[in-house]
Amino acid sequence: MELQKPRGTRDFLFDDMKKRKLVENTMRRVFETYGYQEIKTPIFEDLSLFTLKSGEGIIEEIYNFQDKGGRDLALRPELTAPVARLYLNNLQKAPRPIKMYYFGSCFRYERPQAGRFRQFWQLGCELIGGKSPDSEAEIIAMAAQCLKELELEDYQIHLGNLGILRGILNQDSVSADEQDQIMALIDKGDAEELKKLLEDLKLPAESRNILMELIGMQGHQEIISTVEKIISTYPDALDSLKELETLLGMLEAFGFSDYVVDLGIARGLDYYTGTVFEIYVEGLGAQKQISGGGTYNLIELFGGEKVESTGFAFGFDRVMEALKIQGTTAPSEGRVDVFVAPISSEMKLNAFKITQELRNSGISTDVELADRKFKKILSFASKSGAKYVVLVGAREMEEGKVTIKDMESGDQEQVSLEMVSKVLVDRINVKE
Amino acid sequence: MELQKPRGTRDFLFDDMKKRKLVENTMRRVFETYGYQEIKTPIFEDLSLFTLKSGEGIIEEIYNFQDKGGRDLALRPELTAPVARLYLNNLQKAPRPIKMYYFGSCFRYERPQAGRFRQFWQLGCELIGGKSPDSEAEIIAMAAQCLKELELEDYQIHLGNLGILRGILNQDSVSADEQDQIMALIDKGDAEELKKLLEDLKLPAESRNILMELIGMQGHQEIISTVEKIISTYPDALDSLKELETLLGMLEAFGFSDYVVDLGIARGLDYYTGTVFEIYVEGLGAQKQISGGGTYNLIELFGGEKVESTGFAFGFDRVMEALKIQGTTAPSEGRVDVFVAPISSEMKLNAFKITQELRNSGISTDVELADRKFKKILSFASKSGAKYVVLVGAREMEEGKVTIKDMESGDQEQVSLEMVSKVLVDRINVKE
Repeated sequence: MELQKPRGTRDFLFDDMKKRKLVENTMRRVFETYGYQEIKTPIFEDLSLFTLKSGEGIIEEIYNFQDKGGRDLALRPELTAPVARLYLNNLQKAPRPIKMYYFGSCFRYERPQAGRFRQFWQLGCELIGGKSPDSEAEIIAMAAQCLKELELEDYQIHLGNLGILRGILNQDSVSADEQDQIMALIDKGDAEELKKLLEDLKLPAESRNILMELIGMQGHQEIISTVEKIISTYPDALDSLKELETLLGMLEAFGFSDYVVDLGIARGLDYYTGTVFEIYVEGLGAQKQISGGGTYNLIELFGGEKVESTGFAFGFDRVMEALKIQGTTAPSEGRVDVFVAPISSEMKLNAFKITQELRNSGISTDVELADRKFKKILSFASKSGAKYVVLVGAREMEEGKVTIKDMESGDQEQVSLEMVSKVLVDRINVKE
Repeated sequence: MELQKPRGTRDFLFDDMKKRKLVENTMRRVFETYGYQEIKTPIFEDLSLFTLKSGEGIIEEIYNFQDKGGRDLALRPELTAPVARLYLNNLQKAPRPIKMYYFGSCFRYERPQAGRFRQFWQLGCELIGGKSPDSEAEIIAMAAQCLKELELEDYQIHLGNLGILRGILNQDSVSADEQDQIMALIDKGDAEELKKLLEDLKLPAESRNILMELIGMQGHQEIISTVEKIISTYPDALDSLKELETLLGMLEAFGFSDYVVDLGIARGLDYYTGTVFEIYVEGLGAQKQISGGGTYNLIELFGGEKVESTGFAFGFDRVMEALKIQGTTAPSEGRVDVFVAPISSEMKLNAFKITQELRNSGISTDVELADRKFKKILSFASKSGAKYVVLVGAREMEEGKVTIKDMESGDQEQVSLEMVSKVLVDRINVKE
């Protein structure tokens, strides 16, 4: 029997992990510079947390199971609901706004395909108790900042405001359920089905035409005035457009203006209320969305008081994929900087001592642990990517000396035992 | 309905996360200095991976479930088996020894109690293809180094060699199954039951007495000669004692000699073969073991070739608890260094601009996002722990100036807009 990882999951090996760690740490630094603090929630939650948020239909797509005590649990499919629960359980009395970020894995039971895995990672944040559109402006600027620091090119940040479409539908007395059906079709981008549904729902021809026109509109600040004319007879929709315009002004103040206003963004989830945004990388094909977010009303749905919340998350694996497609490569480093090689096995304990001295000076160092002959040790040291090898020989040791070999140039230099860590610290430029 | 986290799980809030992160990063740095590289495996594995390693009995203690495709899966209860699988799937041809480390959560379905959680974290490593006792000496020294850098006091590293007890049992023709029963009772520390079992198994009285004497022996290097006399008629046990003695010499070379030789360590798992060690912190009571490891033979059990493997893991939550009991407190830091406060709401966009400039200089900065009155903003800024508040007022802005307020001394200073980020970078001493 060959043991294998479960279908749709991944092992991450050394280089993978280094690249992922670098991206993770870059994003963490940006989030923390913006005043966000990390939190962590359990890998599984009560199933009801997710059905309450997304409806019973979600059960088909998630890993749910009963534990030995008969509790219905689910591996978390996303992190917004757990973070809202954490807020309700722990932070209702904390000074607001509260800025939280998370990095963790989520799970979906779906057919594995390119760019979709059964365990995947999300790095995101929630800002609870801020105001719109101030909060949205800041998190959109922060999302852009993350991508800038990662040197990702060719991404597009699309933003819109759900209040514009909903304002029109409300004015035409379309029920909440029907609105959700409409938003879901807009989110899918299925224009034909959408047209049919709008006709079935007997929307006035004027509203139908306006809706179809709006969801196709994309542009910069200049489209605001065009939209204003189109929706001039829908006061609530106009209020939301005004909010969108204010948002754009704030984004400029936050130093970000490279957005696309896109009134076709629907997010497909009914707890989003106003500003929404999505980030695309075209090169990723069908899985081009690397991030999404907006303002939502989940905490009230969960039984808390009404409090405005804004959040977004990066699909971490898609960001990694986008960087890979772009050809961004993390600096490839050796496993260790120095390898200590005893020339004969009697020198082993001396090699161990020198190794520890180097490690205590902050130099990443490896030493022979497989008791091999000198030639094999040198070949292994070379594969480990070490920049320097310390050769420990019996005759030299008697004189209190070792030889440092520069693996790139091949140069060798005899150094006294007292000096070896100082010499190598200087050469490698160890950071404190 | 009050939404709650599942029984036995935890939410980690801001200060918790900061403390955990600090400990995690300290340990990571030590592991990497020793040449270990990080890997990551899935949260769930095929159930058979764990029953193969630990027997069917493990099923009672773990979270296992069928996915929607009928696969028997389990949330991983530990990480040695997944890492061995990862090695078999990916690394059999990599240059050896292979040094890997991991940090991740594991799951056990057991009654929650002090110090035991249903989701818990392990930080550990595996060294595949090294030799004994060289490899064991290095990882024991590394474990000690981690605790030293964490400034944990009052821990004890107990080490032994299972070959001593097994050598005696083998010579008395005790079967493998019976040996496992014996080792399990030694691991439990149940001397009465052990005596009874040894009698039931009809072990020679001499061997019984020797076994009971050995498992009670603890000391430093000097006990080697005592043990040597006791087991003088058991050649295999003597070989293992010799190996233990060599290990102690190597530990000295690695700069670590603060161990306790303890022949009563059994680890209770039958794939351990030679050197074993456990680390205790007495203050933790019943859950005093914070780490355990040794050399094992798991890869062959999983169908791979015979290759020596050594590994250990820290129970991360117990290390955190030990540091807490000791009163070690991480430096408590504010959420941000600077808070930018508009004096009136017309100054909001200017406040956003200044905020972004500070963030771009690497200063963690927050800005008012809830559109509150100035007095409330100042009170929030103070709660956020900011060292400095930048006051943005209309009259000053006309002159291109803002005021920096030192929140500790209360001193205020007027600064030109061009100088504000430079002044604050200098005061806060931002690291690159």
